[in-house]
Amino acid sequence: MNATMELLQAHRSIRKFKDQPLADGLLEQIITAGQCAATSSFLQGATIIRVTSQESRQALAGYAGNQPYVAAAAEFLVFCADLRRAGKCCEKYQKPFSGEYTEQFIIATVDAALFAQNVVVAAESEGLGICYIGGLRNNPRQVSDLLKLPRGVYPVFGLCLGYPDQDPETKPRLPLPVILKQDTYDDSEDAALIDDYDEAVREYYRNRTGGGHGICWSEQVSTLLSEKSRPHMRGFLAEQGFDFK
Amino acid sequence: MNATMELLQAHRSIRKFKDQPLADGLLEQIITAGQCAATSSFLQGATIIRVTSQESRQALAGYAGNQPYVAAAAEFLVFCADLRRAGKCCEKYQKPFSGEYTEQFIIATVDAALFAQNVVVAAESEGLGICYIGGLRNNPRQVSDLLKLPRGVYPVFGLCLGYPDQDPETKPRLPLPVILKQDTYDDSEDAALIDDYDEAVREYYRNRTGGGHGICWSEQVSTLLSEKSRPHMRGFLAEQGFDFK
Repeated sequence: MNATMELLQAHRSIRKFKDQPLADGLLEQIITAGQCAATSSFLQGATIIRVTSQESRQALAGYAGNQPYVAAAAEFLVFCADLRRAGKCCEKYQKPFSGEYTEQFIIATVDAALFAQNVVVAAESEGLGICYIGGLRNNPRQVSDLLKLPRGVYPVFGLCLGYPDQDPETKPRLPLPVILKQDTYDDSEDAALIDDYDEAVREYYRNRTGGGHGICWSEQVSTLLSEKSRPHMRGFLAEQGFDFK
Repeated sequence: MNATMELLQAHRSIRKFKDQPLADGLLEQIITAGQCAATSSFLQGATIIRVTSQESRQALAGYAGNQPYVAAAAEFLVFCADLRRAGKCCEKYQKPFSGEYTEQFIIATVDAALFAQNVVVAAESEGLGICYIGGLRNNPRQVSDLLKLPRGVYPVFGLCLGYPDQDPETKPRLPLPVILKQDTYDDSEDAALIDDYDEAVREYYRNRTGGGHGICWSEQVSTLLSEKSRPHMRGFLAEQGFDFK
């Protein structure tokens, strides 16, 4: 297996970072590499806010549901889906701007995600650890006000970057036949595979917590999907100009 | 710069592939590496349909707006956002399933995108070329029927994979100060930078087409965003169980 494949397989989220800044220019290099990811119809519909103000970092750590590493990591980036820049292009060419379609929400959101994942790979290739912070969507209005995000822009997630001060195990993933299907979607054989996988996840949590109660994947996910999931998002996105037409 | 960073920076879409299959086991290895990408709340909300049937490939090439490389590439993968699997977890634990929130649409879509970008990096690290096919969303109902995608699952995009039979230039990206902001979103200095960038893009197209008319980035994007962008997506997604509540 080549070194890049090994790097990808070694990924785990890091939530404890050394008090060590990135070398000069490294962040820019990582973001430049990340930016080379594919972008839908060449839109380049993503913008990063690099948060350096300690006051803002503390506020964001709170908005994300008290995640202290948001403040403590060497770098914290907020990946935004951005249609505002495209709107300016429409102004320049005196065309009407239509940012209200679900499709446009999808392309900008996917652009932000592809860009971010490339940034993650670049960062990890330099020995950095990362943690995605979806928790910013707990309080997207506060986050957007703090970062002065204009209409047409929304924070998809945050990303902590820094030198790891922990070395957690990688987390087991669903078996390949469950997530890779041939020609059609057929999950009739998945239940038994997921039962086995649930045991592996239980074991992973038992090891991590030193013998405590191991929760399995299915149970975790059942909790996640039975809750009202950030019901404020729809209204927030409408305020930001994303209309799901 | 390390080899992985160089690899990321060398990315360009490939639309012409050699008639050469992937070595045995390589696709599985690439997907396994890709699957190690972060996943929101451990949801793992993505499923890949690997399309091997030539008949299906031809149909998909047409649905995507006549993109022949969808049929010709060694491999074609459809990345789906998948909440159905999570719904099954809710059944198992006798909890109500709430897949109707915008937030859940976001997490499954982002999961598919992070997974895909990791697959892309893994593939490129093995000398393969790739092309994302967002065009599947031109005819998402037909695509979903062909692949028998159940409720709770939608095709986010396709991905062509194969050995490149062309060597296009990399495409210039927006200047760093435009896409990377510090602490707050401030685009007051962007216009001049984008003017320069527009010239670079014009030049890129002129070179690629051997001296023909070069269109710039701003103009391209103004066209993209002034059109009714796949207005069927909202209705299609509602049929698939994504409700944007």
